[in-house]
Amino acid sequence: MEMPAPNPQIIAQKARIVKRLRAALPEGAVIDAEAEVRAYECDALTAYSCPPLAVVLPGTTEDVAKALRICHEAGVPVVPRGAGTSLAGGALPTADSVILGVARMSQVLETDYDNRFIRVQTGRTNLSVTGAVEEAGFFYAPDPSSQLACAIAGNIAMNSGGAHCLKYGVTTNNLLGVTMVTMEGEVIEIGGAHMDAAGLDLLGLICGSEGQLGVVTEATLRILPKPEGARPVLVGFDSNEVAGQCVSDIIKAGLLPVAIEFMDRPCIRATEAFAKAGYPDCEALLIIEVEGSDAEIDAQLARIVEIAERHDPVEIRESGSAEESAKIWLGRKSAFGAMGQINDYMCLDGTIPVSALPHVLRRIGEMSKDYGLDVGNVFHAGDGNMHPLILFDANKPGDLEKCEAFGADILRLCVEVGGCLTGEHGVGIEKRDLMGHQYAPEDLEIQMAVKDVFDPGWLLNPAKVFPLAATGARREAAV
Amino acid sequence: MEMPAPNPQIIAQKARIVKRLRAALPEGAVIDAEAEVRAYECDALTAYSCPPLAVVLPGTTEDVAKALRICHEAGVPVVPRGAGTSLAGGALPTADSVILGVARMSQVLETDYDNRFIRVQTGRTNLSVTGAVEEAGFFYAPDPSSQLACAIAGNIAMNSGGAHCLKYGVTTNNLLGVTMVTMEGEVIEIGGAHMDAAGLDLLGLICGSEGQLGVVTEATLRILPKPEGARPVLVGFDSNEVAGQCVSDIIKAGLLPVAIEFMDRPCIRATEAFAKAGYPDCEALLIIEVEGSDAEIDAQLARIVEIAERHDPVEIRESGSAEESAKIWLGRKSAFGAMGQINDYMCLDGTIPVSALPHVLRRIGEMSKDYGLDVGNVFHAGDGNMHPLILFDANKPGDLEKCEAFGADILRLCVEVGGCLTGEHGVGIEKRDLMGHQYAPEDLEIQMAVKDVFDPGWLLNPAKVFPLAATGARREAAV
Repeated sequence: MEMPAPNPQIIAQKARIVKRLRAALPEGAVIDAEAEVRAYECDALTAYSCPPLAVVLPGTTEDVAKALRICHEAGVPVVPRGAGTSLAGGALPTADSVILGVARMSQVLETDYDNRFIRVQTGRTNLSVTGAVEEAGFFYAPDPSSQLACAIAGNIAMNSGGAHCLKYGVTTNNLLGVTMVTMEGEVIEIGGAHMDAAGLDLLGLICGSEGQLGVVTEATLRILPKPEGARPVLVGFDSNEVAGQCVSDIIKAGLLPVAIEFMDRPCIRATEAFAKAGYPDCEALLIIEVEGSDAEIDAQLARIVEIAERHDPVEIRESGSAEESAKIWLGRKSAFGAMGQINDYMCLDGTIPVSALPHVLRRIGEMSKDYGLDVGNVFHAGDGNMHPLILFDANKPGDLEKCEAFGADILRLCVEVGGCLTGEHGVGIEKRDLMGHQYAPEDLEIQMAVKDVFDPGWLLNPAKVFPLAATGARREAAV
Repeated sequence: MEMPAPNPQIIAQKARIVKRLRAALPEGAVIDAEAEVRAYECDALTAYSCPPLAVVLPGTTEDVAKALRICHEAGVPVVPRGAGTSLAGGALPTADSVILGVARMSQVLETDYDNRFIRVQTGRTNLSVTGAVEEAGFFYAPDPSSQLACAIAGNIAMNSGGAHCLKYGVTTNNLLGVTMVTMEGEVIEIGGAHMDAAGLDLLGLICGSEGQLGVVTEATLRILPKPEGARPVLVGFDSNEVAGQCVSDIIKAGLLPVAIEFMDRPCIRATEAFAKAGYPDCEALLIIEVEGSDAEIDAQLARIVEIAERHDPVEIRESGSAEESAKIWLGRKSAFGAMGQINDYMCLDGTIPVSALPHVLRRIGEMSKDYGLDVGNVFHAGDGNMHPLILFDANKPGDLEKCEAFGADILRLCVEVGGCLTGEHGVGIEKRDLMGHQYAPEDLEIQMAVKDVFDPGWLLNPAKVFPLAATGARREAAV
């Protein structure tokens, strides 16, 4: 992936910039020792790495504002970073950039059960938001696979989803307000613990903006009462088409499971070999989970099983206990690890209209043969959010490039069938140069003009989201 | 409400502008006869009116683009209009503006039941969207009170809600994509029938932008399978506080009714006198509706009744038949008409955190005495969206001004308790000068800078949303 040449003037001024940051921020908040800075050279898209100029780890919104003001004055690019779990290179540094990490900002600022919200600093991890409210019987709904590690800051930047977002929506549906610091160091409040916004709804714009518009330091999040219980059913099919049709029919029937997860044969096989969850050896497998009281669960599962039975399943396994539920989920939750045992893999993320599932899976299978790279599919079928895992060998020259070309073909296919380049991982650097496939030049121009408003110098999170070719003139004008 | 002075140069060129529009558009699409233009001089905020320069009623996105291009070249302000049902003056013309109405654009362009969406021209009325899909067992969820008349264009402009939005969300939660024409006449596509957006999520920004950023001509809307059934329960209380607490407890228990409607004593009395729905004569009344299969409805209502009983209700009336359900809803649906029988009224729209309900109702009662104007409250309690109806006499000199001052005090109170100036009616001209109460100057500046991107000449929907004082320099610079 091409990256813009770093600004040599900035690099030459490193000592001065670090000194200014140190003078303004508490002790220990600025890191520039080479060995320590290395820990921030990449995120979870490990194929790409580059040590930043320095790393700043503030503890408060005020310190974030100070750091940004200094970088802004000095013309230093800033890469905001949550927990560094981006799969799209969303927090990849450039050599002339300062990493602004919110990892030390993990406090709960306010909980309000009557109005069902929690306000946190955005360095707090996703799971520990639920942790802060679960004794009172609440939870925070979006649940990315990385929820143990990923930060709310990154969830907001990428509009993250998760397996249970079919029912509860993704981050944007559970975010009520943010405190954001602009590149100029101005602190602005957007939204809050109430419905709707007066004037332009900037909250929807900020959510998913991948650190292009500002650094979100505090967030007001909707919390929900924990359901009484949950129970999955596993259904195996001899055909991807039929499994896809079953998903469609469940949704059409007006049922709203919390999750409908889909695994195809390559993924089932890899998972079985690794986790031994006792999955049937079939073409496609659905895990459908419903929530509620025991009576509600029984009623919903009965209707789901009835629909599944009309589609000639090879197996229907309804969970009868907490252990059986855990076993049904075990394979799904081990899928990424299982694929990783076989080889290196790249995890893609695109969305498609649900009805296009069979066609897209068939085409991915054909491309897999053409490229000579195996691929397993595991994804959130209910909302058409695909996660193809392409296997490759990082030590084999040319394999990464082949894998990337294959991935780009899959994402182009998603767009062709009426879908989108990204469901929850964001564009980052990974899909930056595919944006032209999704958007006409005038559409991209409007997005970039909106960035101009918030970050006229184009200093925030450089080289992400927008194709380098399209942003070149802007970056040069800003220097 | 102060309006900016119309541009005399534009008015002087009326004949030339109308001629250009006529030449570009099909016969009958341009109206400039004084008597016909009068029909567009106001929307549902009838206290304000002003005939526009001319009215354009295109039939296609292409014709909208042609009209906008001509107005843009001539520097003519454009006021987009749906069905003209705005309660906030969102479609109020200025004397130098062209009304661009989408009322003739009401076609269904595509229905896709597998992927659960419908694509329509935005002049289509809200209710007729459901009408187009109900035979197939689907419906469109947002249901403003004006749904028989209001257009999807206006729903998108104001991010409209409705009684059943507690469960299904407001427009922004049910809007998948739009075709929008910018003031320059450029047609852009935003979002689509898939989850998420790559890059900046402009869809969330467009929704609720009150015609400030472009004219939305086509929309892709989420449709949902119709529930098997629905049933309300009516609960009366002797205290607003206790009724508010009951709402809180229902939500905290993890129940998600489709609607929780609240009426206070003045509203109950007016409604009873008018519609004779047989409501109890009490301080506060809730109508709580749940949906699902008969078994699900029974289970949910049982839990709701159990919670209500803990709050000393004066009456609990569970519907036992379709007739009883209709009677329970009759009063609520007649409330606006009933208040209108007593006097002229102004319908406000603000949101508050649900827990602030008792305090806000008490304060409104006190202010009602101070101003000497009666007020009835009927609103969507589940999501804290209030609709105080202030009664006044339009023929009594000074009464409208007193009513507006009272309304402004109520909206300021909403902001003070952590709420928002608008839930679903928008800012329009009504709340324009209150925006400074909700937003700091730098917050407003960012909103206006975003408008600069889409409409640098500040020609779209003039004098709405932003305080005149704040926009003056921009409008002058643009002329």
